Amino acid sequence: DFLNALDEVTPAFGVSKEELEQVVQNGIIHFAPVVDELLRSGELFVEQVRTSTRTPLVSLLLHGPPGSGKTALAATVAQASQYPFMKLVSPEGMVGFSESQKVAAINKVFADSYKSPLSVIVVDNLERLLDFTPIGPRFSNAVLQALMVLLSRRPPKGRRLLVISTSSLRPVLTDLGLSESFDAELWVPPIASLRSLEYVLKEVELFHDASQHRNAMHMLQQAGFDGTDEQDSRLNIGIKKLLSVIEMARQEPETVAERLTGSLMELGL
Amino acid sequence: DFLNALDEVTPAFGVSKEELEQVVQNGIIHFAPVVDELLRSGELFVEQVRTSTRTPLVSLLLHGPPGSGKTALAATVAQASQYPFMKLVSPEGMVGFSESQKVAAINKVFADSYKSPLSVIVVDNLERLLDFTPIGPRFSNAVLQALMVLLSRRPPKGRRLLVISTSSLRPVLTDLGLSESFDAELWVPPIASLRSLEYVLKEVELFHDASQHRNAMHMLQQAGFDGTDEQDSRLNIGIKKLLSVIEMARQEPETVAERLTGSLMELGL
Amino acid sequence: DFLNALDEVTPAFGVSKEELEQVVQNGIIHFAPVVDELLRSGELFVEQVRTSTRTPLVSLLLHGPPGSGKTALAATVAQASQYPFMKLVSPEGMVGFSESQKVAAINKVFADSYKSPLSVIVVDNLERLLDFTPIGPRFSNAVLQALMVLLSRRPPKGRRLLVISTSSLRPVLTDLGLSESFDAELWVPPIASLRSLEYVLKEVELFHDASQHRNAMHMLQQAGFDGTDEQDSRLNIGIKKLLSVIEMARQEPETVAERLTGSLMELGL
Amino acid sequence: DFLNALDEVTPAFGVSKEELEQVVQNGIIHFAPVVDELLRSGELFVEQVRTSTRTPLVSLLLHGPPGSGKTALAATVAQASQYPFMKLVSPEGMVGFSESQKVAAINKVFADSYKSPLSVIVVDNLERLLDFTPIGPRFSNAVLQALMVLLSRRPPKGRRLLVISTSSLRPVLTDLGLSESFDAELWVPPIASLRSLEYVLKEVELFHDASQHRNAMHMLQQAGFDGTDEQDSRLNIGIKKLLSVIEMARQEPETVAERLTGSLMELGL
Amino acid sequence: DFLNALDEVTPAFGVSKEELEQVVQNGIIHFAPVVDELLRSGELFVEQVRTSTRTPLVSLLLHGPPGSGKTALAATVAQASQYPFMKLVSPEGMVGFSESQKVAAINKVFADSYKSPLSVIVVDNLERLLDFTPIGPRFSNAVLQALMVLLSRRPPKGRRLLVISTSSLRPVLTDLGLSESFDAELWVPPIASLRSLEYVLKEVELFHDASQHRNAMHMLQQAGFDGTDEQDSRLNIGIKKLLSVIEMARQEPETVAERLTGSLMELGL
Amino acid sequence: DFLNALDEVTPAFGVSKEELEQVVQNGIIHFAPVVDELLRSGELFVEQVRTSTRTPLVSLLLHGPPGSGKTALAATVAQASQYPFMKLVSPEGMVGFSESQKVAAINKVFADSYKSPLSVIVVDNLERLLDFTPIGPRFSNAVLQALMVLLSRRPPKGRRLLVISTSSLRPVLTDLGLSESFDAELWVPPIASLRSLEYVLKEVELFHDASQHRNAMHMLQQAGFDGTDEQDSRLNIGIKKLLSVIEMARQEPETVAERLTGSLMELGL
Ligand SMILES: Nc1ncnc2c1ncn2[C@@H]1O[C@H](COP(=O)(O)OP(=O)(O)OP(=O)(O)O)[C@@H](O)[C@H]1O
Ligand SMILES: Nc1ncnc2c1ncn2[C@@H]1O[C@H](COP(=O)(O)OP(=O)(O)OP(=O)(O)O)[C@@H](O)[C@H]1O
Ligand SMILES: Nc1ncnc2c1ncn2[C@@H]1O[C@H](COP(=O)(O)OP(=O)(O)OP(=O)(O)O)[C@@H](O)[C@H]1O
Ligand SMILES: Nc1ncnc2c1ncn2[C@@H]1O[C@H](COP(=O)(O)OP(=O)(O)OP(=O)(O)O)[C@@H](O)[C@H]1O
Ligand SMILES: Nc1ncnc2c1ncn2[C@@H]1O[C@H](COP(=O)(O)OP(=O)(O)OP(=O)(O)O)[C@@H](O)[C@H]1O
Ligand SMILES: Nc1ncnc2c1ncn2[C@@H]1O[C@H](COP(=O)(O)OP(=O)(O)OP(=O)(O)O)[C@@H](O)[C@H]1O
Ligand SMILES: [Mg+2]
Ligand SMILES: [Mg+2]
Ligand SMILES: [Mg+2]
Ligand SMILES: [Mg+2]
Ligand SMILES: [Mg+2]
Ligand SMILES: [Mg+2]
Repeated sequence: DFLNALDEVTPAFGVSKEELEQVVQNGIIHFAPVVDELLRSGELFVEQVRTSTRTPLVSLLLHGPPGSGKTALAATVAQASQYPFMKLVSPEGMVGFSESQKVAAINKVFADSYKSPLSVIVVDNLERLLDFTPIGPRFSNAVLQALMVLLSRRPPKGRRLLVISTSSLRPVLTDLGLSESFDAELWVPPIASLRSLEYVLKEVELFHDASQHRNAMHMLQQAGFDGTDEQDSRLNIGIKKLLSVIEMARQEPETVAERLTGSLMELGL
Repeated sequence: DFLNALDEVTPAFGVSKEELEQVVQNGIIHFAPVVDELLRSGELFVEQVRTSTRTPLVSLLLHGPPGSGKTALAATVAQASQYPFMKLVSPEGMVGFSESQKVAAINKVFADSYKSPLSVIVVDNLERLLDFTPIGPRFSNAVLQALMVLLSRRPPKGRRLLVISTSSLRPVLTDLGLSESFDAELWVPPIASLRSLEYVLKEVELFHDASQHRNAMHMLQQAGFDGTDEQDSRLNIGIKKLLSVIEMARQEPETVAERLTGSLMELGL
Repeated sequence: DFLNALDEVTPAFGVSKEELEQVVQNGIIHFAPVVDELLRSGELFVEQVRTSTRTPLVSLLLHGPPGSGKTALAATVAQASQYPFMKLVSPEGMVGFSESQKVAAINKVFADSYKSPLSVIVVDNLERLLDFTPIGPRFSNAVLQALMVLLSRRPPKGRRLLVISTSSLRPVLTDLGLSESFDAELWVPPIASLRSLEYVLKEVELFHDASQHRNAMHMLQQAGFDGTDEQDSRLNIGIKKLLSVIEMARQEPETVAERLTGSLMELGL
Repeated sequence: DFLNALDEVTPAFGVSKEELEQVVQNGIIHFAPVVDELLRSGELFVEQVRTSTRTPLVSLLLHGPPGSGKTALAATVAQASQYPFMKLVSPEGMVGFSESQKVAAINKVFADSYKSPLSVIVVDNLERLLDFTPIGPRFSNAVLQALMVLLSRRPPKGRRLLVISTSSLRPVLTDLGLSESFDAELWVPPIASLRSLEYVLKEVELFHDASQHRNAMHMLQQAGFDGTDEQDSRLNIGIKKLLSVIEMARQEPETVAERLTGSLMELGL
Repeated sequence: DFLNALDEVTPAFGVSKEELEQVVQNGIIHFAPVVDELLRSGELFVEQVRTSTRTPLVSLLLHGPPGSGKTALAATVAQASQYPFMKLVSPEGMVGFSESQKVAAINKVFADSYKSPLSVIVVDNLERLLDFTPIGPRFSNAVLQALMVLLSRRPPKGRRLLVISTSSLRPVLTDLGLSESFDAELWVPPIASLRSLEYVLKEVELFHDASQHRNAMHMLQQAGFDGTDEQDSRLNIGIKKLLSVIEMARQEPETVAERLTGSLMELGL
Repeated sequence: DFLNALDEVTPAFGVSKEELEQVVQNGIIHFAPVVDELLRSGELFVEQVRTSTRTPLVSLLLHGPPGSGKTALAATVAQASQYPFMKLVSPEGMVGFSESQKVAAINKVFADSYKSPLSVIVVDNLERLLDFTPIGPRFSNAVLQALMVLLSRRPPKGRRLLVISTSSLRPVLTDLGLSESFDAELWVPPIASLRSLEYVLKEVELFHDASQHRNAMHMLQQAGFDGTDEQDSRLNIGIKKLLSVIEMARQEPETVAERLTGSLMELGL
């Protein structure tokens, strides 16, 4: 019966929790309302797949600038689903694969998912799965065609599947004809307001005391980073890159604020 | 003799009824007169192949925007033919196939069909069978050449064959020189009138009561979706996408109408 | 001696009469003087090969719009030659062949022909043998080069060979440098006069009585199809397509004339 | 010693006299002084290779329009050399060869030649050996590179080699960088004067009597073919094509002159 | 425990000290302040990787004109780290490797590094690893895609990795989409001031006495090489090329200064 | 010890003296001062490699128009070095090699050289090693990349290597990014003055007596070939081609001077 089948599924394919956790190593920092909105939207799709009879397949796209947190958010939504089958398809595990090996590996994950009543697959970093280069452009048409079919192929009767894909090259997906394969898209923005930046700085405890903090914020304002998300802001950086910039600045305790501001200004050029 | 041969045929190749049924999982909603006209046209071709001695081969093309219902309609016509050989050729069963494997698989279906006195083959989603990408453009010339020959090759004496192909990229078929291989073409339109939309909404019972329904229709009119099929309409959505949009809206019972209208407006952009 | 050799040849390679007959299934309808002229020209080349000592090889090209009857005419001339070696080289028997398999298959037919004192080879549908696509353009250079050599290679001493090729893409042959390989070319025209059309309609007995026939002809004149071959005519359809259009019209006995006229008008667009 | 070595060579590689004869089946018609000049020039190169110690390798190119007689002339010069090693490298024997098989076959002929003290190799029809197509253009770079090296590679000490190549696409050789590989070039012209044409007609005895001949010549003059080689002439036809046109005309004895003139006029278009 | 694990690691993979030393055979000449600044920056990244918990992976790019000393500096920083795993990935050890062999070799170094708690990998000469040519341009997309993934892939829990890459074609990295894979970039400048040049000349003891030295410096000033790094200078030469030019000049003791000045002027053209 | 190792090396790899001699079959004619200057420059590089500790690798390029004598000069310098390892890498020995076979063969010569304390490698005819064609352009990127690495790779400690490459397509090397791999370049000019031409004519004893010689020189002056190397001269011919032209002229003793002058004038067109 159903529960037995489920039991069988779990050990056989495993639930790749560790892989999903690995990509959220720095946690989710709630630096702006959009972070919670994205998580809530994800949850709604999880529920739709669980309940609607007419849409046993939903394909979702998270897109945004490099390092804006797409992979971490996709993995967080997938993990939270608690579906019996949860899997990460990532180029990181396919270095050196030939085109056909990639297609076979991706295809297998989808085929495996069909054995579980409820599945979620994170298809991470589409441009790398596609071996995409802007020069040419060049890409793996074999992987592209496989993805186009797999993202639209209904699972067999009684099976339901949520696919969450991520990409930094949204316009390329349109050029490739891949964007039509998604039922919905969510935009993951970069950090663009001083308020969000301040939130992150506090969270990662870059400064030792409140005065150091105030001085740094002043310096950032002077440098012109006082726009807000809505207004035109000089600030525009993915959370991943920001965390990296912060750690570099942290190396020289005396000049943390200067180095932070300097790095952000260089990026703006 | 003939009946024996037929008997032999049926079990050997099977009649892929299940495959054909699978692609019509949400049934056919008769949202506009064109739906019945399309089914009737299909029936006429089924009869021509059954009876005319001069045209033992008829190749038909169903084309229209993505998700307009081409595959479901082609499968419905094929199933209704009740021919002893009915087969679906679909890219969904060929993920990861090499070019030559695809050609061999397609060729085999045609070769098998020649063993039955009366056959219908649905060649679904030509652009995916061809591995077509607009960038380049790139496509499998091997599959293209095989299709061009197979769609025109007369079956052996005493055999008759109806081929129903589907495509969302009609102009590409002309560029590729493939459109000349069809004896006739049928256009499967998207839903473009409020009347059709209303028909579908009723059919899938999105609203709980008549008042909720009236309010929603009012909201859609306000949003500018009150054109008709003949006039210039802001509405333009395939039935497949519409069913998906409806299920998403259904997730939040309180704001169903708002979400439905919102989704349709976003698509219009 | 000679006769013995001939006897040996015949059974070994066979004379592919059936293949040649298969492509003329609907017979030759003498709808215009050009049909007989073409057959007579073919006969002259058959005689030249049989008798001239200086030209043991003659390569002939039949070209014209799709469905104008090239294959049927080439096969008819070949069959009428009564040469001991008659063979059809057609893409229909090469679906799924690799480039080198195609070249080997074609080369073998020519090599076989050299064993017979008198041979005729129909090389049908050059563009499909070449895997030609206008996009790119793409084509098999291996097949092209093989054809260029084979169409010009003198048979060994004492052997004579007539090659009849067909193509719908005459200008492409020039682009590819293939047209210089032919000693002569014949143009197979489409049906372009009402008189020819009427001849065909009678031949295939589309109408039940003379009055139905008269009405139909009147309707076709009204629709503007009363040009002649010489004048600028709205009518322009290959015999193969015309036979197909006729059979579709025949499906609905009440409205045969309307459907026929309608189909012809659609083609004109 | 030398004579012994020579004896050994001859049977091992053979002298491909038959192949060389086969390509001059219709003989050499001396229709103009240029024919003898070409043969004399060839003879001079044969002598240079036989006697000069500083140039053990001479590469010669015969080029001219299609069918102007290049292959027949090259073979005639080679045969007349009476060198102990005489070989024809021709695309006609390489149908279906892969690139590397072609290179190996060509390379082998050169390697074999190095075993003979005096060798002549006819490398016929460079554009076909190169698999050249103007579309692209496409060609075998492997064959090209092999030819560039082989046409310039000095034979080992004590060996001498004359290479005679032919081509109808002289400008392409420059584009490919192949023309620099030749020590000398000779232009093989088409027939462009009525006097040459008349010479050929007599030689092949197209007409039965002198009056028929006179009438034909008059008809050709009327048609504007009375230019001379030096002046601008409407006549421009390779000897090979001319012989073919003559044989077609010969098929209908009553209208030989009309058909001949007609064919020549069509070619002029 | 940790120390044991470390012990095991060291012998297994070895620390490729010799390879790293080999590329600094001519030592580091401190011809300008920038040399020390570069070494200090490198040291900072070494410390960041050693200490920060949020950035277990740091990817650094050294770029500058050909021969400016990128490889020597990268190797010096790597060696100075004293990390238990230090490795040089260089095209010099991959001559003749196929694309997939290259990818496998590079991938293996990264996989090996994951077994050590602290690792540094020098990925030298990106353009050669990528088989990059400006004509086309052509490059190995397989290697590019592998590098893009490997330069961003977090090592497993508890492992830390510093990657130092070098390139002379910084703009190409942007075109290829590879530049986003780096956390930081450092510019390695050529020698552009007479002061730096003089420093090097002294260090390598080109002249035998002070007067010869003075004369040479005068000659160089006369030739216009007296700019400074900040001003627009005629001098612009990588340290590697400079050392080569010096050795050539050294060959003719009488005219050392003339030859040196002459070579530098030729380079300026 | 060292001497033993050297002894072992010599027989193992051999010194390809014969190959080097074979390419200088016609000797070196000292027709102009530049010939000796080139040989002296080569000698200097031989000495630099023998003595300098900082430059164990020197890569030299000889370039100039086709047939100007590059290969002969490179081989002469190499032979004169008397290094224990001397080797010729030439496309003449690689006809029919695949790309990877070429790379392997070239790589092996370099690897072998590392076993000798002092080595010189002549890498002849770069454009043929690269399979370069101007159409496209096409070339072997695998060979290119291998050469770029090998021409810059320092030999192991204690080993020294001189590489002398030749090319007729100097600008192509820049396009390919290959020219930066050379430490120095030498230009091998064609014969451009009547004085040089006269020197050669004497050396090869084309004329039987002084009066014949004087007449010929007069004829050449009349034809406008009396420029000098420095002035703009009509004369421009590689020594290799000149020797070939001379031998052709020698064939007809009566008209030697006329034929020589005629050939030189044709080349000038
Ligand atoms: N609100 C947040 N959303 C996403 N990630 C966050 C957030 N707060 C902190 N992070 C951390 O930031 C990092 C985001 O990196 P992630 O790889 O998800 O970005 P990405 O957009 O997928 O990058 P890339 O474009 O390179 O694929 C993760 O380490 C994650 O733990
Ligand atoms: N009138 C209708 N015509 C066709 N399909 C309908 C109709 N009414 C409901 N449907 C349902 O709508 C869906 C149409 O999807 P289908 O795959 O046939 O579209 P498609 O045009 O082939 O899409 P694609 O362009 O992606 O190939 C099916 O689930 C079908 O059951
Ligand atoms: N006068 C005619 N000439 C040629 N075919 C005729 C004629 N009359 C009737 N037919 C029939 O018309 C059909 C012509 O089809 P055929 O395949 O020869 O055309 P085609 O020009 O080769 O087509 P395609 O361009 O597709 O290769 C055949 O079935 C033949 O029997
Ligand atoms: N003067 C002539 N020169 C050359 N061939 C002649 C001459 N007179 C008669 N012939 C005949 O004409 C034919 C010339 O054909 P050949 O194949 O040599 O021409 P080609 O220029 O090589 O053609 P292609 O361009 O197709 O390679 C031969 O059959 C030859 O016997
Ligand atoms: N300050 C310095 N920085 C770097 N290298 C130096 C310095 N001083 C001397 N050198 C020597 O100069 C040479 C620099 O060569 P290196 O191969 O590192 O240059 P590169 O920029 O990597 O060259 P390429 O662009 O060819 O890869 C080395 O031999 C090194 O020992
Ligand atoms: N001064 C000279 N320099 C070089 N070669 C000379 C000289 N004098 C006579 N020769 C002879 O001239 C010929 C030069 O040919 P070589 O193959 O070296 O020219 P190349 O420039 O390498 O030609 P290619 O451009 O075809 O490679 C040789 O046979 C050589 O013996
Ligand atoms: Mg990501
Ligand atoms: Mg479909
Ligand atoms: Mg046909
Ligand atoms: Mg020829
Ligand atoms: Mg370097
Ligand atoms: Mg050379």
